[in-house]
Amino acid sequence: MASPEESGQLSVEWARSHMPVFALAEKYLRKKDDGRNLFQDLRLASCLHVSKETAVFVESLKSFGMNIHLVAANPLSSQDDVASFLRSIGVSVSAKSNESIDEYTSSINSAAESNPEMIVDDGGELHVAYSQTGSLSCRGGTDETTSGTFRLKAIEKAGKLTYPVIPVNDAETKHLFDNKYGSGQSAIDGLFRAAGLLLSGKCVVVAGYGWVGRGVALRSRGMGSRVVVTEVDGRKALEAHLDGFQVMPMMKAAELGDIFLTCTGQIDVVRSEHFARMKDGAIVGNVGHFDTEIDVSGLNRLAIKTGQSRRNVTRFELENKKSIYLLCQGRVVNLVAAEGHPPEIMQLSFANQLLSLYYLLDHESELRDSKSRVLEFPQEIDALVTNLALEGFDLKIDSLNSSQKEYAQSY
Amino acid sequence: MASPEESGQLSVEWARSHMPVFALAEKYLRKKDDGRNLFQDLRLASCLHVSKETAVFVESLKSFGMNIHLVAANPLSSQDDVASFLRSIGVSVSAKSNESIDEYTSSINSAAESNPEMIVDDGGELHVAYSQTGSLSCRGGTDETTSGTFRLKAIEKAGKLTYPVIPVNDAETKHLFDNKYGSGQSAIDGLFRAAGLLLSGKCVVVAGYGWVGRGVALRSRGMGSRVVVTEVDGRKALEAHLDGFQVMPMMKAAELGDIFLTCTGQIDVVRSEHFARMKDGAIVGNVGHFDTEIDVSGLNRLAIKTGQSRRNVTRFELENKKSIYLLCQGRVVNLVAAEGHPPEIMQLSFANQLLSLYYLLDHESELRDSKSRVLEFPQEIDALVTNLALEGFDLKIDSLNSSQKEYAQSY
Amino acid sequence: MASPEESGQLSVEWARSHMPVFALAEKYLRKKDDGRNLFQDLRLASCLHVSKETAVFVESLKSFGMNIHLVAANPLSSQDDVASFLRSIGVSVSAKSNESIDEYTSSINSAAESNPEMIVDDGGELHVAYSQTGSLSCRGGTDETTSGTFRLKAIEKAGKLTYPVIPVNDAETKHLFDNKYGSGQSAIDGLFRAAGLLLSGKCVVVAGYGWVGRGVALRSRGMGSRVVVTEVDGRKALEAHLDGFQVMPMMKAAELGDIFLTCTGQIDVVRSEHFARMKDGAIVGNVGHFDTEIDVSGLNRLAIKTGQSRRNVTRFELENKKSIYLLCQGRVVNLVAAEGHPPEIMQLSFANQLLSLYYLLDHESELRDSKSRVLEFPQEIDALVTNLALEGFDLKIDSLNSSQKEYAQSY
Amino acid sequence: MASPEESGQLSVEWARSHMPVFALAEKYLRKKDDGRNLFQDLRLASCLHVSKETAVFVESLKSFGMNIHLVAANPLSSQDDVASFLRSIGVSVSAKSNESIDEYTSSINSAAESNPEMIVDDGGELHVAYSQTGSLSCRGGTDETTSGTFRLKAIEKAGKLTYPVIPVNDAETKHLFDNKYGSGQSAIDGLFRAAGLLLSGKCVVVAGYGWVGRGVALRSRGMGSRVVVTEVDGRKALEAHLDGFQVMPMMKAAELGDIFLTCTGQIDVVRSEHFARMKDGAIVGNVGHFDTEIDVSGLNRLAIKTGQSRRNVTRFELENKKSIYLLCQGRVVNLVAAEGHPPEIMQLSFANQLLSLYYLLDHESELRDSKSRVLEFPQEIDALVTNLALEGFDLKIDSLNSSQKEYAQSY
Repeated sequence: MASPEESGQLSVEWARSHMPVFALAEKYLRKKDDGRNLFQDLRLASCLHVSKETAVFVESLKSFGMNIHLVAANPLSSQDDVASFLRSIGVSVSAKSNESIDEYTSSINSAAESNPEMIVDDGGELHVAYSQTGSLSCRGGTDETTSGTFRLKAIEKAGKLTYPVIPVNDAETKHLFDNKYGSGQSAIDGLFRAAGLLLSGKCVVVAGYGWVGRGVALRSRGMGSRVVVTEVDGRKALEAHLDGFQVMPMMKAAELGDIFLTCTGQIDVVRSEHFARMKDGAIVGNVGHFDTEIDVSGLNRLAIKTGQSRRNVTRFELENKKSIYLLCQGRVVNLVAAEGHPPEIMQLSFANQLLSLYYLLDHESELRDSKSRVLEFPQEIDALVTNLALEGFDLKIDSLNSSQKEYAQSY
Repeated sequence: MASPEESGQLSVEWARSHMPVFALAEKYLRKKDDGRNLFQDLRLASCLHVSKETAVFVESLKSFGMNIHLVAANPLSSQDDVASFLRSIGVSVSAKSNESIDEYTSSINSAAESNPEMIVDDGGELHVAYSQTGSLSCRGGTDETTSGTFRLKAIEKAGKLTYPVIPVNDAETKHLFDNKYGSGQSAIDGLFRAAGLLLSGKCVVVAGYGWVGRGVALRSRGMGSRVVVTEVDGRKALEAHLDGFQVMPMMKAAELGDIFLTCTGQIDVVRSEHFARMKDGAIVGNVGHFDTEIDVSGLNRLAIKTGQSRRNVTRFELENKKSIYLLCQGRVVNLVAAEGHPPEIMQLSFANQLLSLYYLLDHESELRDSKSRVLEFPQEIDALVTNLALEGFDLKIDSLNSSQKEYAQSY
Repeated sequence: MASPEESGQLSVEWARSHMPVFALAEKYLRKKDDGRNLFQDLRLASCLHVSKETAVFVESLKSFGMNIHLVAANPLSSQDDVASFLRSIGVSVSAKSNESIDEYTSSINSAAESNPEMIVDDGGELHVAYSQTGSLSCRGGTDETTSGTFRLKAIEKAGKLTYPVIPVNDAETKHLFDNKYGSGQSAIDGLFRAAGLLLSGKCVVVAGYGWVGRGVALRSRGMGSRVVVTEVDGRKALEAHLDGFQVMPMMKAAELGDIFLTCTGQIDVVRSEHFARMKDGAIVGNVGHFDTEIDVSGLNRLAIKTGQSRRNVTRFELENKKSIYLLCQGRVVNLVAAEGHPPEIMQLSFANQLLSLYYLLDHESELRDSKSRVLEFPQEIDALVTNLALEGFDLKIDSLNSSQKEYAQSY
Repeated sequence: MASPEESGQLSVEWARSHMPVFALAEKYLRKKDDGRNLFQDLRLASCLHVSKETAVFVESLKSFGMNIHLVAANPLSSQDDVASFLRSIGVSVSAKSNESIDEYTSSINSAAESNPEMIVDDGGELHVAYSQTGSLSCRGGTDETTSGTFRLKAIEKAGKLTYPVIPVNDAETKHLFDNKYGSGQSAIDGLFRAAGLLLSGKCVVVAGYGWVGRGVALRSRGMGSRVVVTEVDGRKALEAHLDGFQVMPMMKAAELGDIFLTCTGQIDVVRSEHFARMKDGAIVGNVGHFDTEIDVSGLNRLAIKTGQSRRNVTRFELENKKSIYLLCQGRVVNLVAAEGHPPEIMQLSFANQLLSLYYLLDHESELRDSKSRVLEFPQEIDALVTNLALEGFDLKIDSLNSSQKEYAQSY
């Protein structure tokens, strides 16, 4: 029987062996950094899902000489064996598989108060917490998600953002791949492990047709489901319609859906008025970063009886005698019920993270004068990661010849 | 913390609540049997995957008064909590989650030697074992799979089949649904849980384009993979080609595939000459009933080093320095790494099973004279299950009006 | 400017160059027939769509020495330039692009009354007409469609079938390919040419989920439509459901559909009660062999005004102020608005036709004693065409090795 | 028999009845313009594909009082009956179905030299020609394509752009819909009509994975083809890979493809070195705006014999004895062989065109001071067209409630 540490190590090795693009980024950086040691002894606070892929990233930062304090980006998503492994190589990890909200918040606050020099975040929680400490230690940061980017801009608007931040989600090599192909697959994976039901012939309601919703809708259809999309944005609604999905308001979708998956970044997207109209046995799960998309309190208020049906399935019996099944307490099914995005996707995000952290230090003096604290994602990193990804995925492409280049300048 | 028995019970309840078609079949039979008690006190030996859906079926047989001896249809596929629950309601279960081959075989032999009056089998193992006992106790049996049907015909040809058998796989409401939609989804589910890798952009080689292979190819594509199909049957190869899959011999596919899934019912479909040509990191798994499709011994002979990479992933390092990853020791990934077909599919198979067992007793005298011991699947059961399925899936369809019926007779 | 004859010749050459499987069948037959000249001077009456692919087939029969009388299988589907070309090589063709029903019927009757020695039919019209002549000249025949097969069995049942017939539609290499992939594509092609509307986002109602309906549903989805399926057969309805299509009765589908395509072989599948519920602008077309599936008379009765909107689109304004557009007068859109199945599909059908005609003569004496006049499709032809198709499509496949063959016999 | 004028009118009515979004835009503008008559007596030069949808747009401009001179955007794409109809309502049309290059160029030059007050262009030809006249009559213009936008920026850079231009292609409601869903369908439609071959099982090589290429790849797959994508842009190549298409350089794709479709906006994307490697019977067609993507001269040089196979198919026999078929002389197949994008798509483009022209006049004084002559596409028009499109497509969507709006501002 393997110890948690050994089991974690195997898990991290499995991830690493499927992250060649990240390995190429690391190799690139090691060459570039040669002798400068920009990361050496730097205090990093990071709030990330404690997964095997995160461990590959964190282990790499460690190997560059950083001191790392890692906390969880979600109270339910941490893998204990991975945490054990990271501790064994000297990373300070405050996270466990099933934290209370208090433990989770308190870990984030401790990390925020540790006077970090850099912050890597996933959802903006750590940046928000740090902005309330009054500390000025931080020299730069990144964030991984659409939600986080949004919050960082709000902190900046409120005049509380004291360091430059690179919104990694804005990298084309991040949001086009992680959000669509990553979430698309891992949502289905989470759904399989949590509920284990047939998708063929089911009506799946996808709330939100951003990159995440697009991926989830596409893969649900790929498993044989009929997909209904709800949106608040007209242009996305039109796209969903022309992609062959049925578009309607949630009040109508509520009556038709067998499975509901929220991908909006908003609050209360599925709420009491919707629960009340659902079919008996409807399944409700969330793919968005925060557990705000499904109004779980509202569901509790409607319920006359609740109980656990499976590990990640809670049954709510309503007054109308119908049952609604909630997945993973409304937390992101991809990470709570499954393992999050596969390593081939996470390698792109973490390659961008790694190169962004370095960029912040390498351009520190120039960035001091930049008007905006939430930076445009540096195009050079996007271009570099694109090339590394082509190499890592073993893809050969064409290039413009000289007459084509000339044509591209002519009219 | 729930006891295994309680946990098993929850699991079975979850399955039952998603098996309305089976419930309708049960209700139908209870009405039909009214007072006759054909199943009362009958000794049944059954060799099935000890899953939550099987438990719903077995519990129903028990409620009709049968005495049931249940053994596993695969040494790795049994769920211990489900077994505990079944024991708690009085079913004799000889199965555990990780049996040795000896334990597995010995359980089957005991069941065969228990002078059963009926046999329910999945793969023909129990029928084969019974045929060697010389017992004449058995009055009728069924089998669930293509493989089992095939073996039963061979037993009959050898003059050793002493009772009528209904090959449930021949039911249109079984093989069209279980094999295609069931295997299609559960193979992907197994792949996710076992390996957790990205399917988008991968090249998946599906060996065999029967109903199982069709489902696996379709769902792999649905997750964004490019699919290569290998076949020995020309007509199926043409279909795969026109369905947009690339068709080639395994020797060539071996060089291109990232993931190999065998769905053939044959032996050594992927063997040494193929392993030797595979890319570094290739993943090999089996979706067929028996663990004969991948030549695991051959792989062991080629390997200079082996080790466990994840729970259901074994790494083989070959002399050529490349690694090959074998899923679930070559056993059916759908059941070993995941939970098998979802309950909505299994309900169709078990509705057919239930009604077939009853049919065998209800028509016992007529069947005594039937020339063939492996019966044609009774059309009346197929028609009945079709109607129950429409009701259970809540589907309304059209019917021919009188002028259309007349037209159907005219020329 | 090319003459009709030259234009027809070019067209036939284009078809021939995309029918390598037919060429292989012809070559095979020429070798087999060597010196026997079974087709020499034989009188053939054939009722087929006068298309470029048919011309390739007919030209081949001509080159074997047959005397051929060709009439149209549909009053609207004949291509005049192809007819000109066929006449120029000595085929007697009674067909033109836009026949009246009288001309069409009279041509068929003439062909039936010409004392043919063999009959090749598409839809059974010619067999029916011949059965009423009292002639005994015919030595064998074939038919191309499901509809035709059905009618032949009815003629046989009525004791009027005096010669053996091979129902070519029963060939796996015919119905699996022609009906699904052929109809699937050519229905979309016909829809494009007739109406020229966007399919993305449209709701397409497919009536019937046989092989034709499956193909049409699949390709409609492939163009971005949401597909609703109507059926009278429960098992097919379940398949459509699990394939991710919405299943409902036509009365409900009538309210939802933007486009209706009938693929049933039945009469009045879309009729007054449905027209009355349709949305303004609904488009109704037929993919089935006969123009009976849409109740055009009913539509005329409901209309307060009709008019031609495009070449193959008739507008019916109903009392409720809504307009319904009928494609191709209710005749098969694939052939009337487009060119029918592509040559790569037709080559399979015509390879089967060619080999079936030869088979009938080659086995004439044995067949005299066969109980049934509508024969089982000869497996040897299916197997042969399968092999020729693999060669023609340049597909390589695996074959069983000796231990696999042995395994296939064991249990 | 209808006159060309009548036939054109029917055609335009058919288009108009499928362009409700354009009708809503027109209605909106009529209300907004009430009494101002900004379009009255204005001289418009427009270079557009003379199609039924263009006629709906032009007729509308006419009804607002404009004097319109229409020339063709492609020497092969004009529909004569539509031109006749437009002339009958007083539009000056210099275009016919099969122009020589000289006629085509001379028409554009005449239009450029007519001292237009506004220019509507499709591909930038007219803007380029006008920029060489030295006239200063023009007060504003638009262009429809990616290619045109690119050229306008080059004219501006050269200091020759004397009036503000709105690049309509930059509207999200244009390029997301027209380029992807429009081109996707009309390319397949063009392929069907030009070549009439089976797509199932074919290998289709799509050059370029921009919005047009994405649509073409998606719909080709939807018809059962295997799709290979070539790209010069790494990020797009990665997307194609993860969308399940095979990515490779054209030199390798040339050996595999059955059909080649260029969607790049570049020159010589398929050229001699590729033709030389193609399979016998390969088909080459262009979906891009200009006939520069396929090196037709190169193909002519390689050929030892050429000839017309079908209306829009030219056969080139090469020295290596293989034949290559070129569609539509290398001009855009969507418009030359088929009817271009369907009206439901064109209505979005033309609603943007109509509102953009009005915007240019309505904001004339402000725009005089704008730094850039090629404007950003006005967001207010995009938002307006989005809403009109929702109404026209009859789509209902959700809107944020007050607590969601608040959440969207918080952090």
